[in-house]
Amino acid sequence: MMEIRLEQDLMEANNRLAAGVNRFLSRRGILTLNFLSSPGAGKTTLIEETLRRLRGKANTAVIVGDVQTARDKERFEKAGFGAVQINTEGGCHLTAGMVEKAIASLDLSGLDILFIENVGNLVCPAGFQLGEDLKVVLLSTTEGDDKPGKYPSAFFNAQVMIVTKIDLLPVTNFNLDAAKRDALKINPNLKVFDVSSLKDEGMGEWLDWLIRALEAKRKKREP
Amino acid sequence: MMEIRLEQDLMEANNRLAAGVNRFLSRRGILTLNFLSSPGAGKTTLIEETLRRLRGKANTAVIVGDVQTARDKERFEKAGFGAVQINTEGGCHLTAGMVEKAIASLDLSGLDILFIENVGNLVCPAGFQLGEDLKVVLLSTTEGDDKPGKYPSAFFNAQVMIVTKIDLLPVTNFNLDAAKRDALKINPNLKVFDVSSLKDEGMGEWLDWLIRALEAKRKKREP
Repeated sequence: MMEIRLEQDLMEANNRLAAGVNRFLSRRGILTLNFLSSPGAGKTTLIEETLRRLRGKANTAVIVGDVQTARDKERFEKAGFGAVQINTEGGCHLTAGMVEKAIASLDLSGLDILFIENVGNLVCPAGFQLGEDLKVVLLSTTEGDDKPGKYPSAFFNAQVMIVTKIDLLPVTNFNLDAAKRDALKINPNLKVFDVSSLKDEGMGEWLDWLIRALEAKRKKREP
Repeated sequence: MMEIRLEQDLMEANNRLAAGVNRFLSRRGILTLNFLSSPGAGKTTLIEETLRRLRGKANTAVIVGDVQTARDKERFEKAGFGAVQINTEGGCHLTAGMVEKAIASLDLSGLDILFIENVGNLVCPAGFQLGEDLKVVLLSTTEGDDKPGKYPSAFFNAQVMIVTKIDLLPVTNFNLDAAKRDALKINPNLKVFDVSSLKDEGMGEWLDWLIRALEAKRKKREP
């Protein structure tokens, strides 16, 4: 019980800090997305391919969280995108405090969209807000259609669900309808996309939606 | 800092309890395995196919942990195997206390191997012993070869690593050598298997090894 109470206190303190981070970013008209998924569902690849397609349309930045290594930062840099790496050193999720610190080393002038790639984990990151406008949960076709039911809080807290590796659907036993039905039962407001980042399937729809979300954010911008 | 200290205290209390669970099971000559991986790496399928192949050779039982749902228990029962389901209700790993309680509802007479399927998570379960003899970490070819480096503690704490979905290797960009090299750098003593549970690749070697581990356990059995 003590574990649970302390966890809730930490979560509340975190979420108060996150609200401050969100105000800070919103004042600058920056749309902020927090990407959650299992390890290997394709967060880095999706973000990379999204950044590539946003070139010339929006200015982007990435904060990437991992337990250890700077591999994702290096992947982004190799692809020509700057990124700030956070290592949680054992922690299973990013916190608003980590993001606040990372933002300090970003050039925010002219920034349109901030992508935050959380630690690969379907449990812990779900309850910890980072200052984002939207949580995007990824579910890959190779990890099984039963995951929304088994890990409901990630799907409950997200606004967007992206089914990734849709090109591998024929070689898996993933039931796309069942996965979506379960996810929408948990959260009827989820906006759902089917995507293969590598095979360029469904990326257009996701990009169009993202640009519209950016425009909506700008309209709401505080003076 | 307080979070870390409390987490360590909880981990130590858990691991003391785990030692008691292990003594209890060892006295009965039961080999106990704790399976860790990302969600969807194939723990349930691997255990199911292992149970099927152990029929007539060893008596088995399964304890399965999930955040929510009894789907894995139902999967095992549909396949003709009894299973005890633990729901952690938000918790990102099983604890020794949960396993101790689950064991009470198992028929231990004549039991040879107890399979414990942990919550799908590469971070939290790594430090929490459940009373097992061996930790088995799964890494699927569809989740990327960079995972050992990114989530080292699961690979550091395991004795066995099973690369799953090896049949999907040709349709992924997974570098099998790189994944193994990274894992063995973290833990040179890892016993590594390449397996496709569904396509029956590599299952023979894994089964032979498991039977030998059971025999070794029986030899060590306390009087």
